[in-house]
Amino acid sequence: MIKHITQDDIKAMEQRERARLINSLSGFKSANLIGTQNASGITNLAIVSSVFHLGADPALIGMIIRPDTVPRDTLSNIKATGVYTINHVNSLIWQQAHQTSARYDESESEFEKVALTEQFEKGIDAPFVGESQAKFALELREIKPLEINGTVLVIGEITHIIVPDIALCKDGYIDIEALDTVAISGLDSYHTTERLGRLSYAKPNTKPQLLNIEGDVC
Amino acid sequence: MIKHITQDDIKAMEQRERARLINSLSGFKSANLIGTQNASGITNLAIVSSVFHLGADPALIGMIIRPDTVPRDTLSNIKATGVYTINHVNSLIWQQAHQTSARYDESESEFEKVALTEQFEKGIDAPFVGESQAKFALELREIKPLEINGTVLVIGEITHIIVPDIALCKDGYIDIEALDTVAISGLDSYHTTERLGRLSYAKPNTKPQLLNIEGDVC
Repeated sequence: MIKHITQDDIKAMEQRERARLINSLSGFKSANLIGTQNASGITNLAIVSSVFHLGADPALIGMIIRPDTVPRDTLSNIKATGVYTINHVNSLIWQQAHQTSARYDESESEFEKVALTEQFEKGIDAPFVGESQAKFALELREIKPLEINGTVLVIGEITHIIVPDIALCKDGYIDIEALDTVAISGLDSYHTTERLGRLSYAKPNTKPQLLNIEGDVC
Repeated sequence: MIKHITQDDIKAMEQRERARLINSLSGFKSANLIGTQNASGITNLAIVSSVFHLGADPALIGMIIRPDTVPRDTLSNIKATGVYTINHVNSLIWQQAHQTSARYDESESEFEKVALTEQFEKGIDAPFVGESQAKFALELREIKPLEINGTVLVIGEITHIIVPDIALCKDGYIDIEALDTVAISGLDSYHTTERLGRLSYAKPNTKPQLLNIEGDVC
């Protein structure tokens, strides 16, 4: 049976039920840990499912933060230092990653609380996650308030990428599935992936071809 | 071996290689088809990997569109009609979905070109994809230019949701994995998923519990 849910139905729903429903609709989401520190050097780690690609040249990443929920320390740290890291969540650390969303006091570091390893790199004033396989650092470019619902769009430029060379394909693609990166659906569901295939650039009068992920390309 | 890629390396890369690399970094992305029509009723369908959750109350979805690439008809249609649909790509239609990114003439409908079925619902002036299992209609709320790289953020409010009741869990979560919704990595890689688990709401002094996805919840 196909269910039709109207705008009135959505408005009438209990708040948590509506949050679970609407959060399921956008499709699979990225699972990333945002690493920051405040001016006193207290580190912070927060799982965020709203990281998205914004552009490759310059290399820009966007994320949505709701100032009144847990990543609030993340936002104030980014404002204070202008620097943050984004670390892929993988299938070995997904439960610890989820636990960073608990409301720890700002004097406590989530790294310690959930037992993940701080990794510092020279010249970057924000901690990476040692257990994460694909990670990168960013400099803050812009904080754009979205008046429509009180969230903010944080835009950063990528300054440093750390990735195992085995997953870096010759054509630039990173095989994030081989690195065990997970995806999120809804508010709380975590998923590993299985590749259907890579497809060639689409042109009007030809069918897309499957790219060979091994050998030639990777 | 761990590879470090610096900002200078990124800037020096060949354009398509950089696009593949940077597009891989945000993690898994949603795979959605945007259904629109112009004022003359010519329909359009475009795959977009930049759809993201913006808020549940009001129910808002964001997506990034680069006006100079293929979804340009999508943007002008949304501006003209104020209405669009978002349709999950699943493992039966992923190759057809990818093919919508070819540069078809604006007088041609991608529905016909890639052999997907237009589905119209009363009162909604945009086509759904018949073959998509989870889909919803939106009214345009805001088009926000992002000056930093010339992209635009399109914000819509969800007005109508169509989903099989078998995938709609009691607590509001939609089991999009059961609907075969796929994820994208990079520019051109498509993935099915396998659930690791759902986790309970995180609290500071307890470990998150695995939620039972069948029976009680679903």
